[in-house]
Amino acid sequence: MQLEAATIDIGTSRPLVLLHSNDAGELGAHPLDRVRIDHDEGTTTGIVKRTDELVNPGTVGVTEPLHHIHGVVGVTLAGTPQSVRYVRKKLDDIELEAHELEAIVTDIHENRLSDIELSAYVSAVYTNGLSLEETKHLTEAMSGVGQQLRWESPVVADKHSIGGVAGNCVTPILVAIVAEAGLTMPKTSSRAVTSPAGTADVMEVFCDVEFAMADIESIVDETNGCLVWGGGVDLSPVDDEIIRAEYPLSVDPTGQLIASVLSKKRSAGSSHVVIDIPYGEGAKVESLVAARELADDFKRVGVYLEMDIACAITHGTDPVGRGVGPVLEARDVLAVLEGAEDAPESLRVKSVRLADMLLEHCGVDASAADILNSGRALERFRRIITAQNGDPSVESSDLEPGTESATVRASRAGIATRVDNRQLCDLARRAGAPLDVCAGLVIHQTVGNEIALEEPLYTIYAETTTKLEEAKTLADRLEPIRVRSKADALVERR
Amino acid sequence: MQLEAATIDIGTSRPLVLLHSNDAGELGAHPLDRVRIDHDEGTTTGIVKRTDELVNPGTVGVTEPLHHIHGVVGVTLAGTPQSVRYVRKKLDDIELEAHELEAIVTDIHENRLSDIELSAYVSAVYTNGLSLEETKHLTEAMSGVGQQLRWESPVVADKHSIGGVAGNCVTPILVAIVAEAGLTMPKTSSRAVTSPAGTADVMEVFCDVEFAMADIESIVDETNGCLVWGGGVDLSPVDDEIIRAEYPLSVDPTGQLIASVLSKKRSAGSSHVVIDIPYGEGAKVESLVAARELADDFKRVGVYLEMDIACAITHGTDPVGRGVGPVLEARDVLAVLEGAEDAPESLRVKSVRLADMLLEHCGVDASAADILNSGRALERFRRIITAQNGDPSVESSDLEPGTESATVRASRAGIATRVDNRQLCDLARRAGAPLDVCAGLVIHQTVGNEIALEEPLYTIYAETTTKLEEAKTLADRLEPIRVRSKADALVERR
Repeated sequence: MQLEAATIDIGTSRPLVLLHSNDAGELGAHPLDRVRIDHDEGTTTGIVKRTDELVNPGTVGVTEPLHHIHGVVGVTLAGTPQSVRYVRKKLDDIELEAHELEAIVTDIHENRLSDIELSAYVSAVYTNGLSLEETKHLTEAMSGVGQQLRWESPVVADKHSIGGVAGNCVTPILVAIVAEAGLTMPKTSSRAVTSPAGTADVMEVFCDVEFAMADIESIVDETNGCLVWGGGVDLSPVDDEIIRAEYPLSVDPTGQLIASVLSKKRSAGSSHVVIDIPYGEGAKVESLVAARELADDFKRVGVYLEMDIACAITHGTDPVGRGVGPVLEARDVLAVLEGAEDAPESLRVKSVRLADMLLEHCGVDASAADILNSGRALERFRRIITAQNGDPSVESSDLEPGTESATVRASRAGIATRVDNRQLCDLARRAGAPLDVCAGLVIHQTVGNEIALEEPLYTIYAETTTKLEEAKTLADRLEPIRVRSKADALVERR
Repeated sequence: MQLEAATIDIGTSRPLVLLHSNDAGELGAHPLDRVRIDHDEGTTTGIVKRTDELVNPGTVGVTEPLHHIHGVVGVTLAGTPQSVRYVRKKLDDIELEAHELEAIVTDIHENRLSDIELSAYVSAVYTNGLSLEETKHLTEAMSGVGQQLRWESPVVADKHSIGGVAGNCVTPILVAIVAEAGLTMPKTSSRAVTSPAGTADVMEVFCDVEFAMADIESIVDETNGCLVWGGGVDLSPVDDEIIRAEYPLSVDPTGQLIASVLSKKRSAGSSHVVIDIPYGEGAKVESLVAARELADDFKRVGVYLEMDIACAITHGTDPVGRGVGPVLEARDVLAVLEGAEDAPESLRVKSVRLADMLLEHCGVDASAADILNSGRALERFRRIITAQNGDPSVESSDLEPGTESATVRASRAGIATRVDNRQLCDLARRAGAPLDVCAGLVIHQTVGNEIALEEPLYTIYAETTTKLEEAKTLADRLEPIRVRSKADALVERR
């Protein structure tokens, strides 16, 4: 069928082909079918969207990614991509081969799958699982479509946390220690997706975090380390698309999680990686058994990819550090590096433990505590900040939270029986984090603390009174720090 | 957050809410999250689409279904609907309860699920299956959101075919016989979706098929039957949405199929239904065992819904009738009713058998063959045509196929070992059916026929030379009627 092509912006990054219902009917093209467009510059395949309003009969609309198509073009019905058959195969619970996973990853990368098909992939992987073999092949395929970083040093240290814990900003401390010990640690981190602050958001309080490849190389050259935003280098571009489908379903299947993490590490050129797996009620991994299984799977896939993986199973029920939100977490980080008296102990201890693990794992004989306590880690951190265009003279006391604040106090005496990470994150976000960098929380209690009536539980900080009020309203409905009287402290009575 | 609302047409029937990335970020709203809009007329929930181009910061765009929202409105993050949790539960292979299936059906009906969530539902049902209990509840829920037809007669006859067989237009003959026997048979049929002609497309050759409820009632009052398009009465509106997600994945899970068919029958007020289940290689149901299982499940769900179901397991490997396409099938139908000598025997026999089954099933002591042979079925059919604004004097010889034709002949002598329904349908569609009503095929051979070299296999009819050529080009690549020499006729040798 010959049609006149026109670009139509409907706010999508997908290569959609808009056909008037009459033309679609004549072509036998259903919504989500593919059509082949033969045009001046070659042949392109796109997904059909039927419409009665956006194009007239005789015209074919193409979305922005296909804007190079214009003039009179030939439109014919195209088959379903092979990758959709492989998705169907996975729905049938049949193990996929390497080339089949590769086809799925490539088609996701090229935006060739519709949301229906992408979701079927995620659903199939969630409900039927991925074998270890499949996870290996998927990781390779996902890394294969990304940008690749390569380093001169044979040992490149890296760290990842499975997430779900409020605060927990160990990475800057870890990088400072490990880089000071002489190892190469070019760390890419994410910005907040559902949390009140990603490591990249925290680092942005100190310095720039968006750099191109060449800049990153010279920063690492100069300082052994870096703390940059991973979005600037496209290490595993398919991951974002898959997460987009996982997010509304609240699923995060193990095999996919491993492939997601390790594909990025592989593309980043990391050779030795410590994975932090927080577990516990309310964390992503709920039991110690599940945490151990996940750790073993990470290590197995690592062997296949010739990466040395070590896993740290940590407590995921309590926040790590006191601050939640970019500036508040940055203050904690700097206080630990400064060795300040009021530095949060939980953050210091976890950073040192993970750093020791990573040093040992990389075969370096050094003590993280020594490097930290001697002030050398702080020095190294200041060098990294300088290399990333920040002010190295910053001190933790310079980092002021939002001017609007409210402290929530215990409405009864008792014991803190539970701290809910998710509720704390929701509160910090409601107060404005991460976009309002000075917004967030300071948490005054941890699980097990004995608490008096009216004792402070946590303080909310915001940049505006409106947001403070919104957060306070939410706080009235939540109970992020549960205080129970000692008599109550049995878990359940039925 | 206070924003100015504006309607934006991006060619969707979904209630989407377009937010500028800045506003979405501030709100913490991800793509596919829901937001609550508080406006003059109340509160509405919609699915978020982030954009940098379609709206400016400070403006919220709403799609056509939400066009009643305007002025300054309050926008807040809303939770995930419960139904998404139930979809997730089904992905976890946990049996859903009646109210959970009802919530899913209601939310699909109200367009509240994104494609990601809808596809996860279809994927979960496909991969984990539906129990009989779930199928019953799903059928009830799907019927519950549709329009309900009610009839005075306590016995209302109906028929459904699982489909996948070319030709197979038994329904008009069946309705004529059964209505003439005194039963009420208000038949709603579909138009072609993937086939070259639905029963509604065939009936449209004779008369109108789109009627409102009141008209259908008076047609049935007058003639005991009708043959109308089901799309005019919304019997199971959710079905179309579910099929939209099943289609690209080529899945049609059993429980969903049963719910889809029986929810429509229930809404149509049918009390006694015969289900035609064609089986065989290439048909929807591939084995006799699977056909029997499906039949049993249909009957069990029927008992629960207080509907009498009988199933006819039929051959699905051969086309029924000779014509494929609206006019060509209409000619076969009329020829059988006329008792014409050249009427296709396969269509006559299947119609009579199904009619006898339906009559017996409804407790009517009458012979379908007698009613057909006496010419009374033809008379009844003409009365129905008249009631549906058609010309009752039409004869099969008046129905002329497309003027452009080409006959495909055997390239060797042998036996017709296989007739491929799907390839025949593809060819008929390529020739222009169903939009070009005179286009399609006449099939000259059935499985087992002894065929001489150059003997006609099938004839393609089209309304234009272009389409004839396109169909001929496709025919060169296909082999819808496989002819093998007798020596070759073993199935496989390995």
